[in-house]
Amino acid sequence: MAEPADLDVLGIGNALVDVLSQADDELVARLGLVKGTMSLVDEARAQELYEAMGPGVEISGGSAANTIVGVASFGGRVQYVGKVRDDQLGEVFGHDLRSTGVLYDTPRATDGPPTGRCLILVTPDAQRTMGTFLGASVRLGPGDIDGRLIARARILYLEGYLFDPPAAQEAFRAAAALAHAAGRKVALTLSDPFCVDRHRKAFLDLLEHHIDILFANEAEICALYQVPDFDAAMQQIVGHCEIAALTRSAKGSVLVGDGKTHVIEAHPVRSVLDSTGAGDLYASGVLYGLSRGLDLASCGRLGSLAAAEVISHVGARPMVPLAGIAGSVVQ
Amino acid sequence: MAEPADLDVLGIGNALVDVLSQADDELVARLGLVKGTMSLVDEARAQELYEAMGPGVEISGGSAANTIVGVASFGGRVQYVGKVRDDQLGEVFGHDLRSTGVLYDTPRATDGPPTGRCLILVTPDAQRTMGTFLGASVRLGPGDIDGRLIARARILYLEGYLFDPPAAQEAFRAAAALAHAAGRKVALTLSDPFCVDRHRKAFLDLLEHHIDILFANEAEICALYQVPDFDAAMQQIVGHCEIAALTRSAKGSVLVGDGKTHVIEAHPVRSVLDSTGAGDLYASGVLYGLSRGLDLASCGRLGSLAAAEVISHVGARPMVPLAGIAGSVVQ
Repeated sequence: MAEPADLDVLGIGNALVDVLSQADDELVARLGLVKGTMSLVDEARAQELYEAMGPGVEISGGSAANTIVGVASFGGRVQYVGKVRDDQLGEVFGHDLRSTGVLYDTPRATDGPPTGRCLILVTPDAQRTMGTFLGASVRLGPGDIDGRLIARARILYLEGYLFDPPAAQEAFRAAAALAHAAGRKVALTLSDPFCVDRHRKAFLDLLEHHIDILFANEAEICALYQVPDFDAAMQQIVGHCEIAALTRSAKGSVLVGDGKTHVIEAHPVRSVLDSTGAGDLYASGVLYGLSRGLDLASCGRLGSLAAAEVISHVGARPMVPLAGIAGSVVQ
Repeated sequence: MAEPADLDVLGIGNALVDVLSQADDELVARLGLVKGTMSLVDEARAQELYEAMGPGVEISGGSAANTIVGVASFGGRVQYVGKVRDDQLGEVFGHDLRSTGVLYDTPRATDGPPTGRCLILVTPDAQRTMGTFLGASVRLGPGDIDGRLIARARILYLEGYLFDPPAAQEAFRAAAALAHAAGRKVALTLSDPFCVDRHRKAFLDLLEHHIDILFANEAEICALYQVPDFDAAMQQIVGHCEIAALTRSAKGSVLVGDGKTHVIEAHPVRSVLDSTGAGDLYASGVLYGLSRGLDLASCGRLGSLAAAEVISHVGARPMVPLAGIAGSVVQ
């Protein structure tokens, strides 16, 4: 290995700004959205949704970007790769990453669609229903992947959503190959059950050959293997990757690896205000723990802790330094 | 009066998007800002502050715009006049107003500075320290003032901040003259003690001749009359306008009018999370009450109620319909 591993995690994902708005179930239904899921929308549909939404709050998002910010919050050294445009929301996205200690220097697109955004309807049950306009994210391509950078990170973290824009899918494959060539670990999150439906064959192939660490929630892993229940899906994953971290909302999570299975409790939360980012931040805790060589159960507890912090307030990124509270779950 | 009064309140102000970020006292001091106040900054200084700030949340703001949204939330019929650019933050500003039921059709600037923004550092004591880059707000001018529109509103509400951009100051004076010509009431908020220092002579003259309803907090009214204590300032205001609504944070407010003085308690708050918008929303309650012919004490209680709602969460606009809770303080 020519490059020192001076980064804990390098994340690649669709760079998005979230637009969060309170909504009732009636609005979600009237807009033809499926509650709790993410659907891709084009610019015209995004405009239509936005006009129907109440007043919003803009806050930097993007699944892998949220995760990377969470790793930084634990004290990890991290970098992010994702594409915005040279517009106001693009500036906001870059500022919010850098100001949390994340290295970020992906060149901004100077033409084409504006910075991508994720329109999020938060219902009174704290669920989020998302319409994503990928915008400039679709301009991420293999040219944005730097082999030397990838070789420097212990873990490369990729989001399943990256499979939606074709050029980003190429970037994904190139990055995974470069990481393995450098002897690094590759982690994937399945992102969303609909995303799994769109790319099942590719994801199954990736798991067989290119992924060391898998993140998925119950709906995603069941969608992947097209089985009706969690245990059946969990039995399937064994042997197809080194580590699988499977989340189950309030029921906690199950981590499979080292020939063992760990069942980890959800961290207690006073009240759930907005579940946006729960999975993203669970991944932060696990990735930070793995990059620092912690045992799998401790990694799971760090994940539960970070998820609990992020669902106890509005927004998908931590509001307190996770490094300051990590001591409560690991020695 | 040729026009029917089919609007309760018409507000005119600097159209701004807030960028809220958590900060400690040390950062506020290091940036050379005075805690709890608003200072005007140019684009370069705004950039410098932004780079030093932590991750932010973008949320539509502007003092008078917040107030107008509050009146709409009480069920009032309202319109807003203020200038943004044809950029992403300008789109956000317009969306957030319209989606709360506020009429808003001020033409957007197609060149010149970008949409204005207010960089807000929220310290752990829930105080906010603001650096405002006026941006496209400075392009508001007399040409944006429509006499027929002004004649339709029972109350014209103007923010003192409007005196900062010279063309807006002209628009302010034109609007006030048109409102009085149509037999309407004109309300002013002094906005900020530094703003009062910048425009003391003009504000004193306005109060003598052009303002019917004054909003000010303790620091502002003391700055206006250059007296050291609240009671001295309050004695000064009598006779210089029809109604004065003077706010004192946790000490409640004092309303002077109809030859009487009403001392109104602050509405209880479980915990103060962000004081941004407290004065703006107090004005919402009073203006709504006045436009509906309520007695002055009830107006004050509506103001206290709206202020309490807005300081109990992050952001300067109500998160619940104020009409739904107004019944707890007025019959």
